[in-house]
Amino acid sequence: MRYCPTCGHQVEQRIPAGDNRLRHCCPSCNAIHYQNPRLVLGTIPTWENRILLCRRAIEPRYGYWTLPAGFMENDESSGEGAERETVEEAGARIELGEPFSILDVPHVHQVHMFFLAPMLGPQLDPGPESLEARLFNEADIPWDSIAFRTVSQTLRWFLEDRRRGAYSLHTATIRYEQRAPAPADARTDVQTDARASQADAEAGARTDTRTTAPGARSGAGGRT
Amino acid sequence: MRYCPTCGHQVEQRIPAGDNRLRHCCPSCNAIHYQNPRLVLGTIPTWENRILLCRRAIEPRYGYWTLPAGFMENDESSGEGAERETVEEAGARIELGEPFSILDVPHVHQVHMFFLAPMLGPQLDPGPESLEARLFNEADIPWDSIAFRTVSQTLRWFLEDRRRGAYSLHTATIRYEQRAPAPADARTDVQTDARASQADAEAGARTDTRTTAPGARSGAGGRT
Repeated sequence: MRYCPTCGHQVEQRIPAGDNRLRHCCPSCNAIHYQNPRLVLGTIPTWENRILLCRRAIEPRYGYWTLPAGFMENDESSGEGAERETVEEAGARIELGEPFSILDVPHVHQVHMFFLAPMLGPQLDPGPESLEARLFNEADIPWDSIAFRTVSQTLRWFLEDRRRGAYSLHTATIRYEQRAPAPADARTDVQTDARASQADAEAGARTDTRTTAPGARSGAGGRT
Repeated sequence: MRYCPTCGHQVEQRIPAGDNRLRHCCPSCNAIHYQNPRLVLGTIPTWENRILLCRRAIEPRYGYWTLPAGFMENDESSGEGAERETVEEAGARIELGEPFSILDVPHVHQVHMFFLAPMLGPQLDPGPESLEARLFNEADIPWDSIAFRTVSQTLRWFLEDRRRGAYSLHTATIRYEQRAPAPADARTDVQTDARASQADAEAGARTDTRTTAPGARSGAGGRT
């Protein structure tokens, strides 16, 4: 941010009175423009024993497979956003279930949340953000071509819980770690650009996971 | 937003190609400026049988009681944010537990998430955003002076779960509903300003709640 969205004057970075962080502040109209993480909402759509994945038709990670997911919009609930993305990217009809995983990705200023989502039928109609959408048996999941670490981690948790017959809420933080330097004769391959992109999170990330007690959430879905 | 934060030109609202929503678009540098909901992170700090509440020293809801909570910052995880707010607002030392409640508040573009948080001692040291911080027995909770609906709902869930001896994840959406018109002779009191503020959420809101099965999460806290 270089200019004030309110009045158009150049902003400066300073710590406002009573605050302890650098903010974009406008010296002309005195507005303070906060920047905060965004929520990415997705689902784990399932039909019989199969899991729905979409192949991305957009960057980042064009051509890689993902669970349907996207940025939460203003004026919607998190469940509505997750369902909307599932319709937009896969054309799948689901019954939205419980939140299943919450993954913080601090270096890209994102929190990813995936919901359980039994499908109401096997019909798919992928939208323009997907090259294709397909139902996968566990043995056929393209682990080497999963777009994001948050997706592969969620899939692993889901498959473990399904085997156990009980779904818990899972949480994790995915940290960025610069990869160890390569040998001198391979230096041209070293990734030296530390831009915080989602693809970086995949390339060199550490995951701290935390899971609720086994057995939690079996038969979940009651409403109060 | 009236001016482009990137180049300072006046923005216009239009639906970009491949999108289906109005966005702030810059006709000069072609930047698209998305606006998305923000996460509010908080805790339910407990010491023995008592629950920590803070009395707000800032608007909105100056003088009302709240659980410690605030906006998630860039470069932190959701758990780190919740713990930071607890230290800043109450000076309480906690052991951060599981996410306990997730409440969507679509009309103010917020998602509130509260974590379980057993305290490591009863010492408190409220910061400048709090008039005071105090530990309450259930019977003494100032229900008529709770700042936000997300806080009172979280407290009710917490007390129910504590009575049952098992903590589940709870989710809800708090919708804005305009209050019914008052009688004609009282029209000067009618709230006609529909600005989306947190206080509005409190004044005229409907809560759709959803809770996981009873018994879930007892003995939670395992890490994988």
